[in-house]
Amino acid sequence: MEERLAKTIAAIKESGADWGLFTSPDGVAYALGHVCGIEAGPSPFAGGPSLGIVGAGGETALLVTNLEAATPSWAETIVTYTGFSYQQPTDVLENYLAEAKTLFARLKVGGRIAVERHALPSSIASLLEDHALLSIEPAFRRQRSIKTKAEIGQLREAALTASAGQKAFLAATRAGISELEAFAAIRLAMETRAGERLPVTGDLISGRERTSQFMGWPNNRIIEKGDPLICDLAPRVAGYWGDSCASAMIGTPSDGFRRLFSAARSALDLAIETSRPGLVIGELDRSLQAVIARNGYSYAHHSGHSIGTGVHEWPRIVGYEREALKEDMVIMIEPTALDHDVGGVRLEFMLHVTATGCEILTDFEHRPDIPA
Amino acid sequence: MEERLAKTIAAIKESGADWGLFTSPDGVAYALGHVCGIEAGPSPFAGGPSLGIVGAGGETALLVTNLEAATPSWAETIVTYTGFSYQQPTDVLENYLAEAKTLFARLKVGGRIAVERHALPSSIASLLEDHALLSIEPAFRRQRSIKTKAEIGQLREAALTASAGQKAFLAATRAGISELEAFAAIRLAMETRAGERLPVTGDLISGRERTSQFMGWPNNRIIEKGDPLICDLAPRVAGYWGDSCASAMIGTPSDGFRRLFSAARSALDLAIETSRPGLVIGELDRSLQAVIARNGYSYAHHSGHSIGTGVHEWPRIVGYEREALKEDMVIMIEPTALDHDVGGVRLEFMLHVTATGCEILTDFEHRPDIPA
Repeated sequence: MEERLAKTIAAIKESGADWGLFTSPDGVAYALGHVCGIEAGPSPFAGGPSLGIVGAGGETALLVTNLEAATPSWAETIVTYTGFSYQQPTDVLENYLAEAKTLFARLKVGGRIAVERHALPSSIASLLEDHALLSIEPAFRRQRSIKTKAEIGQLREAALTASAGQKAFLAATRAGISELEAFAAIRLAMETRAGERLPVTGDLISGRERTSQFMGWPNNRIIEKGDPLICDLAPRVAGYWGDSCASAMIGTPSDGFRRLFSAARSALDLAIETSRPGLVIGELDRSLQAVIARNGYSYAHHSGHSIGTGVHEWPRIVGYEREALKEDMVIMIEPTALDHDVGGVRLEFMLHVTATGCEILTDFEHRPDIPA
Repeated sequence: MEERLAKTIAAIKESGADWGLFTSPDGVAYALGHVCGIEAGPSPFAGGPSLGIVGAGGETALLVTNLEAATPSWAETIVTYTGFSYQQPTDVLENYLAEAKTLFARLKVGGRIAVERHALPSSIASLLEDHALLSIEPAFRRQRSIKTKAEIGQLREAALTASAGQKAFLAATRAGISELEAFAAIRLAMETRAGERLPVTGDLISGRERTSQFMGWPNNRIIEKGDPLICDLAPRVAGYWGDSCASAMIGTPSDGFRRLFSAARSALDLAIETSRPGLVIGELDRSLQAVIARNGYSYAHHSGHSIGTGVHEWPRIVGYEREALKEDMVIMIEPTALDHDVGGVRLEFMLHVTATGCEILTDFEHRPDIPA
């Protein structure tokens, strides 16, 4: 049995349920290996989110529109419904619900049902009014936090895709082009590696003022010599997110920028040196914040997060987290050093926690300068 | 009062309701002018979709995460909740629901409530178990089908943005580059016009085989001399979708391709000549299909669709539609001519139905050739 399915079933059982329903893109991708299109919002051809059904006894089914049917999944039953017909009037919501109802009856879905509470549509919930709905979240996020071998492979590829974007950032960015022009080259590098369009989140910001905000999407601002830049790239590749962040100055970095860069680099290096199974995550966060503080700066955000079919997964690298790192967690580490008179520097790598330490999955160089 | 809000209130009343709840990105954008981010799927920092509340008496409120608070809206009350805190553990779903509950109590939301049934989360529905939930859809889609003056302006800009992409398609595409490389130039042209990243759907496909499928996103296929191409671009600009489709052959078009192009062009021209208030939409569809058939081809899809804050809105241009065109509808017309031995040609313009005919909102030339 696919290991993610086995872990999903374990989460269903740990939740005290007989069945699990999955309605978030990351939940469906994890439980059944089906990647939902997300780049243009909810599809006008869908009656609701793609619905994954997993039984504690190993039953698996997926309900998707006819337009999504070709996308792979390891569900044993894949049912499609008509999202739109040009030949006769159709009610896509009714088609969705009718097939869901038939599927529930066919599989005998009943008893106690674990659901993704934040992502369950009321339409599907209305079919289950006679049943006890439980939250799958605590058990599911715990199961998902330890990646399978196949997932490590997929996350490695996503990390290398993000890295292709970071290499393009260093190679293509120069004074005189806009942030959007730089981003187009960066995105193209990632999409060419993947061979397809990719959902991409993150940041691309330039200049003292914008990098001091530390988040933002590219706009028409023209990059100038002496500008600091932050380039945070999170592409989703075959259902798995990669992530990364580089920061550099166009031309010769100023002393102030070098100090920021050095502080963030020291914190990142400490994470690489110390991350290993058993390290309490709250302590990791505090140690990275302390490095930045010792250098005279600070950052008002997490030190990182886990990653998988969700771009931000549990556990997050935050001071209140009492969980320890475990082998085969995959975490982002992204310390920031900020000086409003200079700008911001955030340096992020993707780390795979191994039996004895960690392996860097991203494959690009952090450097403080980009030739003007 | 903002005219879209007045029309939303009319839809609530026509639905027989006292309140309307909006939870789809297009519904929230229409009712309250708030544009939700959609490009990377559901936010990991949100407990559910942004929630718009409109009372039949004119009350307006919006519930969004703290990260979305800066996005404009004409709601009089904007409530935010904590999507994530690095300082203490938070339950984002509970935060979302607690603020929704408080908001419902403060506004005295009750009685009969019209909802977007396909987009209502069970979490929000669970707060409303004592109330009658009605579907807003029939009345809402009817109100939205006639665009306001402000909407015509926004759709015009979206059409011009799509057109900027189509001009880049003609200018940047050439033999020897990949579909993804062409798409990067196209997307950059649209995003530069908008000054920001844009959600984009549509198609970019090349070659006989791929254009015969008539849909598909760009990949690493290298465009060759003699390839037919279909470029369908639908960007969302400030909450409103533009749409467009061009088709051309790289180099000198073959006779077969010219025949396809001429057939599709004739159907498009007929739509431009005949679209005016009173024309029954089913008849429009049949007349366009007939032009293509007379030329010896056919297409197994709609002839078009309405467009607004949703990329596909009611009414669609399909044979079974008995509704007539009305002034200030904005419709896409996209006839296709297909020959599996040659490829596909789809030509699409965005039309604003005026008092006496129609105005073409898109601003690019349909031409059958791109220099190799």
